[in-house]
Amino acid sequence: MKTALARPGLISLAAGFTDNATLPVAMVRKLMNEVLGSARTGQPALQYGTTAGEINLRQLTAEHLQALDGGRGGRAEATERVVITGGSQQLLYMTMEALCDEGDIVLVEDPTYFVFLGILQSRGIQARGVKLERDGLDLAHLETVLERLKAAGELPRVKALYLVSYFQNPTGATTSLAKKAAALKLLRAYERAAGHPLYLLEDAAYRELRFAGADVPSALTVRGAADRVIYTGTYSKPFATGARLGFGLLPEPLFSTVINIKGNHDFGSANLLQQLLARALATGLYDQQVAKVQRNYGRKAEVMRRAMAEHFPAEVEVWPARGGLYFWVRLPKHIAAGVKSKFFQTALKNEVLYVPGELCYANDPSRRKPAHEMRLSFGVANDANLREGIARLGAVLRKMTNV
Amino acid sequence: MKTALARPGLISLAAGFTDNATLPVAMVRKLMNEVLGSARTGQPALQYGTTAGEINLRQLTAEHLQALDGGRGGRAEATERVVITGGSQQLLYMTMEALCDEGDIVLVEDPTYFVFLGILQSRGIQARGVKLERDGLDLAHLETVLERLKAAGELPRVKALYLVSYFQNPTGATTSLAKKAAALKLLRAYERAAGHPLYLLEDAAYRELRFAGADVPSALTVRGAADRVIYTGTYSKPFATGARLGFGLLPEPLFSTVINIKGNHDFGSANLLQQLLARALATGLYDQQVAKVQRNYGRKAEVMRRAMAEHFPAEVEVWPARGGLYFWVRLPKHIAAGVKSKFFQTALKNEVLYVPGELCYANDPSRRKPAHEMRLSFGVANDANLREGIARLGAVLRKMTNV
Repeated sequence: MKTALARPGLISLAAGFTDNATLPVAMVRKLMNEVLGSARTGQPALQYGTTAGEINLRQLTAEHLQALDGGRGGRAEATERVVITGGSQQLLYMTMEALCDEGDIVLVEDPTYFVFLGILQSRGIQARGVKLERDGLDLAHLETVLERLKAAGELPRVKALYLVSYFQNPTGATTSLAKKAAALKLLRAYERAAGHPLYLLEDAAYRELRFAGADVPSALTVRGAADRVIYTGTYSKPFATGARLGFGLLPEPLFSTVINIKGNHDFGSANLLQQLLARALATGLYDQQVAKVQRNYGRKAEVMRRAMAEHFPAEVEVWPARGGLYFWVRLPKHIAAGVKSKFFQTALKNEVLYVPGELCYANDPSRRKPAHEMRLSFGVANDANLREGIARLGAVLRKMTNV
Repeated sequence: MKTALARPGLISLAAGFTDNATLPVAMVRKLMNEVLGSARTGQPALQYGTTAGEINLRQLTAEHLQALDGGRGGRAEATERVVITGGSQQLLYMTMEALCDEGDIVLVEDPTYFVFLGILQSRGIQARGVKLERDGLDLAHLETVLERLKAAGELPRVKALYLVSYFQNPTGATTSLAKKAAALKLLRAYERAAGHPLYLLEDAAYRELRFAGADVPSALTVRGAADRVIYTGTYSKPFATGARLGFGLLPEPLFSTVINIKGNHDFGSANLLQQLLARALATGLYDQQVAKVQRNYGRKAEVMRRAMAEHFPAEVEVWPARGGLYFWVRLPKHIAAGVKSKFFQTALKNEVLYVPGELCYANDPSRRKPAHEMRLSFGVANDANLREGIARLGAVLRKMTNV
């Protein structure tokens, strides 16, 4: 893939990068001039801070989350459990470090965010897949999986359910609040057999990249469940990926454990970026940028959707995208789409790249990995390349479905 | 300590923070305006990058290291093994993650950087102390320690020797090139018995905070030893701790392992900070700032040294400081200086705080931790507070040495 990406004619529908065209260059320049405009604000921004993050950004983050969740949740109490990290990836890693030993089990959506699978693998943690429907987690299958683990005596190894709950990577699916509440209830019911809390790790990385429909409240709003929800979010994708900051809201005692771990990893993320984000949030410029990004991705998703409707054979199933960066495309079952498949290689020969869906499935011995899916990103390519990329893929597809 | 630090009248000679007065607020503002002055340079700075770091900063880092080492070492070859991290702390952590399993042993200076001891402890890695002389590592003791570990059959658990080789935290000692070469030779001699490479982890965090004497070449310049040296440095302390970036130069295959680990931790440090540092290095503003910082710490060290000469009893031993942020002070042996000691508590009542030396010693069962030492930092306090802080400590000391 690396070699392919260096080819000048290649259209990549693979990368999860954000769109260069909407990056807030002038806005960040303005904010930096404000932060660094005086010694009073500039010196603290260029000094070490605290491990959990700057208190103003932690407060603004708690308020931001509360606003997204329609005013639910106590802001002051929440601030104390907010940690600022170098992207939400860092928090996912540290949460796994805090929660799991080698050989432990984490339940994941089937398919799920492949980089998270990499984290699990690197730490010797097993992943078990829970089926995903167009509206999110398959609750009946979650119960089946938990029941099977219980029967096999493996429940004490289970630590958490990982959910990319908004415009999921790779499928674009969003899990409803009702489903999140039901999942939490189910997890709670198995805690006695597990012998410890079973956490819901809600990864809301794409939450603010919404361009259709209404926001769904987070699992933090489920009554009585806040002590079981680990919420991770990010300022990178909605604002600027180069000023990478993420955040988390964690229940105690997990919060304290993660702070200790972060103390060992880096004892705090860069203050300059934290002051930049705090000022962006406080001045309303953050919201302005998010609105711009949402309009842009909404338009690009529509460009890609129309191109797929025009160029893809009718047998191809495309899941709807109401936010995020991806379309999930399911080919007829006889067309394999993996890295070594004829389809992938032919697409590459025709200068178009996608993420094979099979990379997004955990190594779960209880089922075969589906091999006929792909993740298409409308994040990076411009409108013309989105159309051309889809046209190329469509041409390859039509040839293969006619055979 | 936390409660004490909130007291308004307290003079802290404990914190390892840098001096607010010399933070390059206007310089960073200027550099940010340049980086974000056009879409051409601004967009890449606000976009995701690669896990190892931006290629221009990696190149500049290799050149910078080469310049510090007097032109020795191949620049192009070195660039490929440079990784940019969120402070050098992150690299220390990832190196331990790459190199050590639970129960493994790392040799450290006795005393050493206490945060590194925290990393080891958090990962279940044992530390064994090697005595430190005023001019660095005690080579005879290093051989004794290695010989003892060999006799006990523990050598296969030993993975590295950790050396804060420039203006060491906490003692200010610098290890000469001859000593580094001899240490590498010794380590090599025990590799057969260990059954694997024994690395020298050279932490050069304070290297550029030099205000007296000449620079010492790094262990990377020792002939034929570059494949055993892990070099970690930082741009945080010499430039701006709030724009935290560190770097490392690692031999293969360790470099690739660390890149994989960083891929899981955060898949790359913030590009905006990397472009800031690259521009600072390329324009010479970095060197200008380093010169300013060196002058400032040189002056403050002299203020503290004179105050100690004036206020401390003659029995107190002060190690010289030619760089860094710290003086190492050894009290008469009967005066305990630990957190629970009468001296520490009386100093605190008199509104002055220091780092008890015993915190900087590993939990090594083969010797008792010395308890009569302290680390005094001239980094944060201004001249008046340095004088006043030392006067207060001196008054407490004189009372206790007279009794």
